[in-house]
Amino acid sequence: MTRIVAVDTYDIRFPTSQELDGSDAMNPDPDYSAAYLVLRTDDPDGHEGHGFAFTIGRGNDVQTAAIAALHPYLIGRPVEATLADLGGFWRELVHDSQLRWLGPEKGVMHMAIGAVVNALWDLKAKRAGLPLWQLLSRMSPEELVALVDFRYLTDALTPDEALAILRRSADGRADREKEILRDGYPAYTTSPGWLGYADEKLARLCREAVGQGFRQIKLKVGADLDDDRRRLRIARQTCGPDIRIAVDANQRWDVPDAIAWIRELTPYDIWWVEEPTSPDDVLGHASIAKAIAPVRVATGEHVQNRIVFKQLLQAGGLSFLQIDAARVAGVNENIAILLLAAKFGVPVCPHAGGVGLCELVQHLSMFDYVAVSGEKQDRVIEYVDHLHEHFQDPVVIRDGSYQAPTAPGFSAAMVPATLREFRHS
Amino acid sequence: MTRIVAVDTYDIRFPTSQELDGSDAMNPDPDYSAAYLVLRTDDPDGHEGHGFAFTIGRGNDVQTAAIAALHPYLIGRPVEATLADLGGFWRELVHDSQLRWLGPEKGVMHMAIGAVVNALWDLKAKRAGLPLWQLLSRMSPEELVALVDFRYLTDALTPDEALAILRRSADGRADREKEILRDGYPAYTTSPGWLGYADEKLARLCREAVGQGFRQIKLKVGADLDDDRRRLRIARQTCGPDIRIAVDANQRWDVPDAIAWIRELTPYDIWWVEEPTSPDDVLGHASIAKAIAPVRVATGEHVQNRIVFKQLLQAGGLSFLQIDAARVAGVNENIAILLLAAKFGVPVCPHAGGVGLCELVQHLSMFDYVAVSGEKQDRVIEYVDHLHEHFQDPVVIRDGSYQAPTAPGFSAAMVPATLREFRHS
Repeated sequence: MTRIVAVDTYDIRFPTSQELDGSDAMNPDPDYSAAYLVLRTDDPDGHEGHGFAFTIGRGNDVQTAAIAALHPYLIGRPVEATLADLGGFWRELVHDSQLRWLGPEKGVMHMAIGAVVNALWDLKAKRAGLPLWQLLSRMSPEELVALVDFRYLTDALTPDEALAILRRSADGRADREKEILRDGYPAYTTSPGWLGYADEKLARLCREAVGQGFRQIKLKVGADLDDDRRRLRIARQTCGPDIRIAVDANQRWDVPDAIAWIRELTPYDIWWVEEPTSPDDVLGHASIAKAIAPVRVATGEHVQNRIVFKQLLQAGGLSFLQIDAARVAGVNENIAILLLAAKFGVPVCPHAGGVGLCELVQHLSMFDYVAVSGEKQDRVIEYVDHLHEHFQDPVVIRDGSYQAPTAPGFSAAMVPATLREFRHS
Repeated sequence: MTRIVAVDTYDIRFPTSQELDGSDAMNPDPDYSAAYLVLRTDDPDGHEGHGFAFTIGRGNDVQTAAIAALHPYLIGRPVEATLADLGGFWRELVHDSQLRWLGPEKGVMHMAIGAVVNALWDLKAKRAGLPLWQLLSRMSPEELVALVDFRYLTDALTPDEALAILRRSADGRADREKEILRDGYPAYTTSPGWLGYADEKLARLCREAVGQGFRQIKLKVGADLDDDRRRLRIARQTCGPDIRIAVDANQRWDVPDAIAWIRELTPYDIWWVEEPTSPDDVLGHASIAKAIAPVRVATGEHVQNRIVFKQLLQAGGLSFLQIDAARVAGVNENIAILLLAAKFGVPVCPHAGGVGLCELVQHLSMFDYVAVSGEKQDRVIEYVDHLHEHFQDPVVIRDGSYQAPTAPGFSAAMVPATLREFRHS
């Protein structure tokens, strides 16, 4: 019987604040970072499981320590039995009777569990010789439902309802898998819109985005209303009327401010307003959504777990649900969230960028299309062209679409030189 | 100018799981623990600031590491200027542009900030020669409002409204301070009701509680319905009809289960049902509250921040608001929550027990009575008779009431022998 024999952790930091890449109204100076782990086994196949939590600099050491604190749950654990029941593993960690006090199900400890869960999925997919999206897309509805913890969800989604959703999508799976392999999955780009960029750079990057085939871009807003108006005007003029322009306030506003500010931006034909206020404020999102209609709200990258997503859906607090691959507790919790979104008929448009988030989340959207929602209408994955060179299996964008990854695993592994050079002392 | 020169951190753990003290439906085996810190300055007065986050065992090392990660914000900091603007200090840490990614405002990092903020309040009160509750009670409405961050609150509570609440209570402050010094503040006891106790022990502890002058007790429920009925019958028979009996499910149920289960317990005249479901589920609490009326919902010990409390009040998700001294970001955030509760007219009944939570939270309730709500009606502080011997200034209970602490500070300091003997290696 093979076992997990080592968990190596790395505090990886990139000095991105020097370039103002990633600058927005709440995050003026991020140093994109990853609390990274490598699971090793004594299997002669030599496969490793890689995973990480994304942070923006200070505190990445705490995030890394939280991952290291999960060692006792991992070392000596039988590989096959663990990978055969990742639903059970998820419950064991998330509901650990002592650890849960540190959340419950939120913040540093929850993200640490997410990094470990994702590393196990990476390992499982490598052992299966499949990219994660295909591995998931070929699991039966019953196997998928067993991965999900329905605790605190049953007033909105029961296991039977989840099973019905998955069975409904079972028919066309093979065709949709082929379609993904041929066409990929649509992306939108945030690269033009960082708040720290000058107007000329904004216009140039908008032109390039349209030239590259993107049908949607996103601009950061919320620091200064006049700047927002000017930048939206430049973007709209450069892109023309057919390109969707979303804006992202990164939690900048209180509820009344959000409503007033967004109304000022309405003339520029905004596709969605992202993170108008605190990610914890379900009722605030619902109030804003009601007041600014027909402009629609998107949120999710900072939503802590499936329970808050459930409420955002119940309250009508969002029209686009933005999963993040590394904030909730990994693949399993994101499957729960994809099922909730399918139940409520809300499109999932993942958050990406950061460090490796594009690499991870493409697998979840492709799986969603093949085996859960079966829909692509109004669904796009965020794309940011930063830091992909640090990954062994970086995303490939062609004609504004993510091309299906074909290498086995979860595309999570960084290149060895990066793990050496960007390790924080 | 005096400065902060050292921050010592301690991973303190008590092996409480051996006695089943603290056992409930979600926490069968807690080892009550504290991630503890001592701030030292170069002031010849020798005063230290003590603070801690409470955890229940595993993960206390991560919580301690998170506090240690705040060293750079503390070392070298001028003592007087910092203590003169704790509102500014709070904003600086909570809204740090990189650290906030780890929450934002929740989980391990937020609790670490709370521990540091509380340690600074301990230091400030010691330097003023006053117990914290008196220090706070003598601050002007303007000074108190300046301590509060209203970000994400203004749809429910503006600074002007907060000022009006505090000014309304300014008149009777001196009388109420005298009253607190004379009568203390009412307590209820959870000591009889831990789930792991045998029926005979439950009955004996109920008798003792009534004999000691408590007018309210609390029982843990939610593991087995027949057990809950039997234990409530024993408690009701032992205490008689005039003692309030609250029950606490510790997040055990989904929404539909909670409603069904609580209805089964209604015949026993329950004063409140505590934590019926996930602390993140605002809408779930509101649904439960509506369905089980006139039985009322209490919650808060796991509520991550003021933004979720705001929504619980807006949605009618609770009838008793249970602040915790060490989960949110310290005294400042709890002042925000006390003001929200006053605005909505909801009684605050703090969570306590654990390690040192009674010691801390008594200060907040006494301050609330003197300077914020001016009310004691239906307000009680939880009391659990564990681990007080480890504190330098332990709580004093007489006739079922907390006696006003008189020693300067926040009653947060453990005795030196405890810091030596229970330090986790």
